[in-house]
Amino acid sequence: MPVTPAQQAEIDAQRSEPRQTLRAVSEGMERHLYLARPVLDHGFVRVIDYMGDDAAICQAARVSYGKGTKSVSNDAGLIRYLMRHWHSTPFEMCEVKFHVKLPVFVARQWIRHRTANVNEYSARYSILDREFYIPRAQDLAAQSVVNNQGRGEVLGAEEAARVLEYLKGDAARCYDHYEEMIGQDGQQGLARELARMNLPANIYTQWYWKVDLHNLFHFLRLRADAHAQYEIRVYAEAICEMVKDWVPAAYGAFEDYRMGGATLSGKALDCVRRMLKGEEVTQETSGMSKGEWREFEGVLEG
Amino acid sequence: MPVTPAQQAEIDAQRSEPRQTLRAVSEGMERHLYLARPVLDHGFVRVIDYMGDDAAICQAARVSYGKGTKSVSNDAGLIRYLMRHWHSTPFEMCEVKFHVKLPVFVARQWIRHRTANVNEYSARYSILDREFYIPRAQDLAAQSVVNNQGRGEVLGAEEAARVLEYLKGDAARCYDHYEEMIGQDGQQGLARELARMNLPANIYTQWYWKVDLHNLFHFLRLRADAHAQYEIRVYAEAICEMVKDWVPAAYGAFEDYRMGGATLSGKALDCVRRMLKGEEVTQETSGMSKGEWREFEGVLEG
Amino acid sequence: MPVTPAQQAEIDAQRSEPRQTLRAVSEGMERHLYLARPVLDHGFVRVIDYMGDDAAICQAARVSYGKGTKSVSNDAGLIRYLMRHWHSTPFEMCEVKFHVKLPVFVARQWIRHRTANVNEYSARYSILDREFYIPRAQDLAAQSVVNNQGRGEVLGAEEAARVLEYLKGDAARCYDHYEEMIGQDGQQGLARELARMNLPANIYTQWYWKVDLHNLFHFLRLRADAHAQYEIRVYAEAICEMVKDWVPAAYGAFEDYRMGGATLSGKALDCVRRMLKGEEVTQETSGMSKGEWREFEGVLEG
Amino acid sequence: MPVTPAQQAEIDAQRSEPRQTLRAVSEGMERHLYLARPVLDHGFVRVIDYMGDDAAICQAARVSYGKGTKSVSNDAGLIRYLMRHWHSTPFEMCEVKFHVKLPVFVARQWIRHRTANVNEYSARYSILDREFYIPRAQDLAAQSVVNNQGRGEVLGAEEAARVLEYLKGDAARCYDHYEEMIGQDGQQGLARELARMNLPANIYTQWYWKVDLHNLFHFLRLRADAHAQYEIRVYAEAICEMVKDWVPAAYGAFEDYRMGGATLSGKALDCVRRMLKGEEVTQETSGMSKGEWREFEGVLEG
Repeated sequence: MPVTPAQQAEIDAQRSEPRQTLRAVSEGMERHLYLARPVLDHGFVRVIDYMGDDAAICQAARVSYGKGTKSVSNDAGLIRYLMRHWHSTPFEMCEVKFHVKLPVFVARQWIRHRTANVNEYSARYSILDREFYIPRAQDLAAQSVVNNQGRGEVLGAEEAARVLEYLKGDAARCYDHYEEMIGQDGQQGLARELARMNLPANIYTQWYWKVDLHNLFHFLRLRADAHAQYEIRVYAEAICEMVKDWVPAAYGAFEDYRMGGATLSGKALDCVRRMLKGEEVTQETSGMSKGEWREFEGVLEG
Repeated sequence: MPVTPAQQAEIDAQRSEPRQTLRAVSEGMERHLYLARPVLDHGFVRVIDYMGDDAAICQAARVSYGKGTKSVSNDAGLIRYLMRHWHSTPFEMCEVKFHVKLPVFVARQWIRHRTANVNEYSARYSILDREFYIPRAQDLAAQSVVNNQGRGEVLGAEEAARVLEYLKGDAARCYDHYEEMIGQDGQQGLARELARMNLPANIYTQWYWKVDLHNLFHFLRLRADAHAQYEIRVYAEAICEMVKDWVPAAYGAFEDYRMGGATLSGKALDCVRRMLKGEEVTQETSGMSKGEWREFEGVLEG
Repeated sequence: MPVTPAQQAEIDAQRSEPRQTLRAVSEGMERHLYLARPVLDHGFVRVIDYMGDDAAICQAARVSYGKGTKSVSNDAGLIRYLMRHWHSTPFEMCEVKFHVKLPVFVARQWIRHRTANVNEYSARYSILDREFYIPRAQDLAAQSVVNNQGRGEVLGAEEAARVLEYLKGDAARCYDHYEEMIGQDGQQGLARELARMNLPANIYTQWYWKVDLHNLFHFLRLRADAHAQYEIRVYAEAICEMVKDWVPAAYGAFEDYRMGGATLSGKALDCVRRMLKGEEVTQETSGMSKGEWREFEGVLEG
Repeated sequence: MPVTPAQQAEIDAQRSEPRQTLRAVSEGMERHLYLARPVLDHGFVRVIDYMGDDAAICQAARVSYGKGTKSVSNDAGLIRYLMRHWHSTPFEMCEVKFHVKLPVFVARQWIRHRTANVNEYSARYSILDREFYIPRAQDLAAQSVVNNQGRGEVLGAEEAARVLEYLKGDAARCYDHYEEMIGQDGQQGLARELARMNLPANIYTQWYWKVDLHNLFHFLRLRADAHAQYEIRVYAEAICEMVKDWVPAAYGAFEDYRMGGATLSGKALDCVRRMLKGEEVTQETSGMSKGEWREFEGVLEG
């Protein structure tokens, strides 16, 4: 269960008290505020606060005194222009803060995006809950044979069952010992900062994560991508749903230019030009390595 | 005049449309929103948007589901604890965006604080206004004889008059030529990106500047300090007035621990300990250089 | 004159004392060390120090104990793979430090790249030299009529002469007054931090600038681009010449994937696919705006 | 064993090939290059590369053409001045790269310092080794009763034995299952990116970590502090030993002003002034909370 009834009550309390503000308001984002969107078996992502909207991107680009905008379509055109020409600073003028509950091995990937602010639940100070990510059988895939760091075929039923038994059993035993070590009934047990070392990487942690829109798009491009690990991709996809409602014009430009786009090398562009002139280009005549050519073909096929 | 009537009308329009939000609201900051606070002769600083309040700092520190706070005094105590122990990440969870109009030589100092987002008015794209910072006579000081990078005595009336004549005359002439070079009456003049090179550093520029509270405090500690150049200090002081109303508890802790505090070296602490035991310590017996000792005496005198 | 004889003697002294090290050495970069490469009329860029080489990128990617490489061609392939898939962290493992002398208006553009370390010559503490950037007549171009922030045709001879007269005359007069204000012959003149405000933006400043290879490539992609302002592009091009000798494999990959490559949007990719199938696609049927379509045609023409 | 014989041979090979360079060389740091300094039971830290030395800090501060220094004592004085007045940018001009082998729970603390570059060993791509941090009995301490996130008394022998049994047994079993899940003998086992979730946080990982001297000092001040968790403090202390030999003047200033110094609040300074005038100040008359007063007394006692 991602959120307990007591936690849900706190969330409901926060959603029940609208207040007045003179700031830019995104109606689309207000609908998401505080609500925990479930991800994986016990995780969630929820937006805690945001700053700015589509118009704020344009105001910053124009350094304007007021709304500085003539019309919504005008703003959308400017936003597309900014995105196309990699003018990133106006997108940095929007900011968003999430509360995320996620397995530790996902958190370790996530934190590599350094241009963000983080406050994580402290396992030196507090006791972690007994909650572990246990994949569904259909998410248990074998090591890929073509891609050295991805997944291939889904495991057979028998092998999946064995894996799940290991994951569940080890998590339970490690947590039992964690609890025993930190001690009960008045006895002064092992320091929490030490006991936590016995916990496997599928235990859940949580944090507040704050990031500007430009860096969030960078995160989403890498982590909502088909090559990202499934367990982080589902978080990225959940965030995409929120961003789409928060800044629809910026998200539309992001989808077209980043998620749906592709960067072609000088060699690849040259091949495209030759192909458009009717030449039959092959890997051998392309100047590309086999790996590059395979990826290039993938782009042309869409 | 920092703001034209047309600009003031845009500001008034923005202040006239309160909307509903579920986000944290700081009543103190709402009063400042959009209003241009005059600084120097033509400059201003105004807050465009903000995220978070005192409670948000505590919620992030506790990674809480709801308001996560028992009382205001409780929150203030936690905030003082965080500030005292250099736990900076909860302060990073608040963000603020300013629109600033400032002379270029001030902007050049300001931009050295890199952990912030900036959109500056483009002099490649647009024409700068004929507005220059001309100091008041009482702000025209001589080079300091004790501090190699500060100011000393105020200039005499005659010398001040000569300086002001130079500043005004050169600014006017440079701007006249700037205007002539970029061309009027249909003729295609010199590119703006080139013509701007003729403008002196006291011309005004403007930007949107967005920063988190931790990094803002760092900026304020350095730039609201008595040793900062007067022309940037007045901006920092204007911002202090806003931050005080935005996050009163955090600002109080900042004043006590950063602005009003001092860092003593190991040598200085050793001297304090010896003095408290009744020893008469002099520069010679302190182990400090003359400069350090002078600064140490300044701290003890307050 | 970018460098005085006394400065050249200091540079020569530094080049005359090779020492032993166990660190990675790039022979190509050693040849550039300390030498001032002239840029514009009085500027220069020179490399002061560097860390790492092509092999260091691969060692970091492999987290290896030793050289961790089988062959140079093997390393080049890995580097191309990393560049193609936006694995930026191994490139961050190389670092370089430059000493740059440049006009202030160029410095103001440059500093917008925040992920770097900078120490600039202090005009609060020191007196700036009488050196101003005065463009060559062939670099005096009109405002572009197609691109709102670029240059168009070169000015006619008469107009160019007028511009040069303004630039030279105003710089000379402003500097004369700067000198007078800061005072000579024992008198305590205006504080330097104030007097500098009278200097136009084509005066030269200098700084030490340190950056990692990933962020340097980002800088070069934007500033060595044909759309960058000429006066910063010449610095970027000078740096390219050094980087090419420092990390030849990484620079080659950068040239192919970044400088020579292009990012196509989802719409643009769709058009390419339709064109390769024989369809005649026009702006009207492309789904792109006129601006986008013009840029897209530019990419296809190469 | 922190390093295998094969790895040691690679290290020895790198140390056996001195080359010539024109760059700044720190003899003190050359002695450390590549050598693995053991930390904890299987960990190490070793310096892979460095840029700059004490003189480089001064050259950057002076933006000088050559060595720009008159004498070593002169440089040391400047460095102390820079450190005392928080002029951080000259220290950023030195850079260092480490290879670190460390338990995952230590890595998770370490990575919170974001202003650094990191390449970690990939457990999506590679198989982790069977190496776990098992504390010595004397390092097994109870949760502190005064400090909510620290350690108190060392555990009794019996309880320590129980803890060690749990840590060893769970690590072994989890690793056995990890190995089984990823599969042997030709069978295509579970993807590595999934299997790793079964590994507890005391397993060792490794990374390349690159940071500038200013940010390294910040890391060391927090992590070499007596309040830091022992398991990260030992890494910080090992790094201190290297930095001391690399930039002795900067390290000396760091020790005096940061490690050995203390920041006193406005309230605390006021108390010191009153005490020096002979007043008997108590917690009640100090204006400080009990916690602050206790820390203040600690500073005065040294």
